[in-house]
Amino acid sequence: MAGNLPIDGRRLWDDLMRLADITDPGKPYTRRSFSPLFDQGRVWLRQRFEAAELETRIDTAGNLIGRRAGTDPSAGTILIGSHSDTVPSGGRFDGPAGVFAALEIARSLSDSGVMLRHAIEVVDFLAEEPSEFGLSCIGSRGMAGVLDDKMLVYTDPAGEVLSHAMNRVGGNVAALASARRGDIAAFFELHIEQGLVLQDSRIDVGIVTAIVGITRIEVVFKGSADHAGTTPMHLRRDAFTPAAKTAIFVDRIAREFVAREAGLFVATIGIISVTPGASNIVPQEARIVIDARSENRAMMDEFLALLDRETAAFANESRTERAVFSRLSDTNPTACDANLRGLLRDSANALGFTSTDIASGAGHDAAFVARIAPSAMLFIPCRDGKSHAPEEWAEPDALAAGTAVIAEAVLRFDRGR
Amino acid sequence: MAGNLPIDGRRLWDDLMRLADITDPGKPYTRRSFSPLFDQGRVWLRQRFEAAELETRIDTAGNLIGRRAGTDPSAGTILIGSHSDTVPSGGRFDGPAGVFAALEIARSLSDSGVMLRHAIEVVDFLAEEPSEFGLSCIGSRGMAGVLDDKMLVYTDPAGEVLSHAMNRVGGNVAALASARRGDIAAFFELHIEQGLVLQDSRIDVGIVTAIVGITRIEVVFKGSADHAGTTPMHLRRDAFTPAAKTAIFVDRIAREFVAREAGLFVATIGIISVTPGASNIVPQEARIVIDARSENRAMMDEFLALLDRETAAFANESRTERAVFSRLSDTNPTACDANLRGLLRDSANALGFTSTDIASGAGHDAAFVARIAPSAMLFIPCRDGKSHAPEEWAEPDALAAGTAVIAEAVLRFDRGR
Repeated sequence: MAGNLPIDGRRLWDDLMRLADITDPGKPYTRRSFSPLFDQGRVWLRQRFEAAELETRIDTAGNLIGRRAGTDPSAGTILIGSHSDTVPSGGRFDGPAGVFAALEIARSLSDSGVMLRHAIEVVDFLAEEPSEFGLSCIGSRGMAGVLDDKMLVYTDPAGEVLSHAMNRVGGNVAALASARRGDIAAFFELHIEQGLVLQDSRIDVGIVTAIVGITRIEVVFKGSADHAGTTPMHLRRDAFTPAAKTAIFVDRIAREFVAREAGLFVATIGIISVTPGASNIVPQEARIVIDARSENRAMMDEFLALLDRETAAFANESRTERAVFSRLSDTNPTACDANLRGLLRDSANALGFTSTDIASGAGHDAAFVARIAPSAMLFIPCRDGKSHAPEEWAEPDALAAGTAVIAEAVLRFDRGR
Repeated sequence: MAGNLPIDGRRLWDDLMRLADITDPGKPYTRRSFSPLFDQGRVWLRQRFEAAELETRIDTAGNLIGRRAGTDPSAGTILIGSHSDTVPSGGRFDGPAGVFAALEIARSLSDSGVMLRHAIEVVDFLAEEPSEFGLSCIGSRGMAGVLDDKMLVYTDPAGEVLSHAMNRVGGNVAALASARRGDIAAFFELHIEQGLVLQDSRIDVGIVTAIVGITRIEVVFKGSADHAGTTPMHLRRDAFTPAAKTAIFVDRIAREFVAREAGLFVATIGIISVTPGASNIVPQEARIVIDARSENRAMMDEFLALLDRETAAFANESRTERAVFSRLSDTNPTACDANLRGLLRDSANALGFTSTDIASGAGHDAAFVARIAPSAMLFIPCRDGKSHAPEEWAEPDALAAGTAVIAEAVLRFDRGR
């Protein structure tokens, strides 16, 4: 099918694979933000932007941007892109697929001599993945004007301060305010689904309804580090017991919420640690981190209230103390722009691709850009839902199809429908 | 009360406190087996043995032994003692109290000019606490002839082999078989209770009925490391869910077993680890270690069968695999010698001390010596049951009382009641 599309799927694919080669050879595919490999990837990416005759710069928040001017300076900018950084031992698609889709759209427009009213900007956002500074979406936060002073002094394990690292990759934190944009008329981001819905239903593209809000809660239970042999069961204050009860409660309540069919809801306990951690000592302290995600804020608030009540009760039942119950982070769900979603749906139809509405369970740069501009995301299927892993995979045709849908939507947006 | 006893409680106490001073100053009280501080403690201990005119040697298993000859070479040896090594940041009493009680008994006999038919040997067993080689009771295993070739090649984190370390502290592994004893007529070990029974009931000494058998089971559940946002609840294979269910099951069943009043039973999950251990990834693997202890082997076997059945069911319910269900270690309960227990009870009565039968929930060197000789243990109260911690404490009078009871029992044993 790729043969009839308004973009060159082969060229797009080749670029994507060449960036993937810039990786830590010991653990493909790794190109961590702020690392020498990240810089190397950006040098090559910049060359590709410039070869497409884009006017290329790094903004003060450290985003790499290539610009193609429009015919009407008052029309504003259509921004398209994603990010080039990866998690450790990640994949080739999460991030770069969206950057090269954007580049291919700009390149194809030029090849076919189409002039648009809007300027087109291709963006590689800085550090979308959780960075060594404990922060994700650094560049898109900067562009949205929500990268605050507290975050700028976060340090990585080597002791470098974030603002220093941003300047090192070409940003200019002293002038960070100028990264905030008021000229963006629309933002489009292509991304692999990182889930199984599109593959299982054999649908070509997913039109994202909303990006979930993510709330992370840390709970620490404190008991007593007693001898496993000489402390009778009834005298114990075992900190792991309420943590285990919390895990079973979270799993049960999340499934109940899903059954309501009131929007995506998932909850996960991925971090569990127990001290002192010896086989012959009753756990003194148990720490868990609960990651809950929903596109429905009311449901999230209900979950948080139940979690608060139940963890307190579990602590009480086991004669332990709930020493910490703290929101580590809390973002609201972000609805995607209804107009842009409609354009994407119509464009998919026009090109002969099937589409479905889908919520994004993962966070994305689009959630930040949505604060300053109409934003939309398009998902393409990926194999077995695998992501953040070397086996992450999308078919070349699927990538070409998604890119063509966004290209068509850009044309329709520029024409004012 | 100490004034009328056949031993010098003050001298005993002073020795105990002086050994405690030989500690890692940064984390009192630490004198880890095979460490330079352990050697330093033993050099001083050997001087104290020799000052008491004991004929002092280190046997081929690395046990420090001081001998006082008897009048009848065919009568055999009364062995008394415990261990001088500690856990990291441990206490001053767990181990050394029993070594100095033994030394004080030998010293008091000499002071009062009493000659016994039996030889008396004071012993400091090598490495009773879990050592850096992953093995406890190394010296008493050697004396019982159960330190096998597989154990001798265990290595510590620095890569040293156990046999080398034993030779380094004065043992002689090439001649290990000669450490096995056939001449021991009776063994007595004084130890702090490490529990709350004696303190709460205000009883002077506990006469140990049995040392629990300890079984350690490792269970590993394997699931799938899926994205916490994009994987719906019903598609997850969360390895932590069956681990949490196991924790709740173990707690419940242990309390049910206690309610049967069929002997001591306790079960603990002190080790829990989850990988990959990130807040946004569903746990792929959960590892737990269950430590179960009982003086009733039938009850332990019933527990292990239930644990096997339930963990398999929990794995199944959560679509995970129970990849490992393995006995890391398994010892049978050890009954103390009825004759020696009777002697200890009569001796306590004769000296005006109250006593009670009590099971030991912790393992001790006596459990190994019991394989080759009639063995008994006497517990003294300790403050709030705290042990393996700097606040571990026993009153000087309690230590003197326990030592006097064993001294009296030694005299009665020597007389053939």
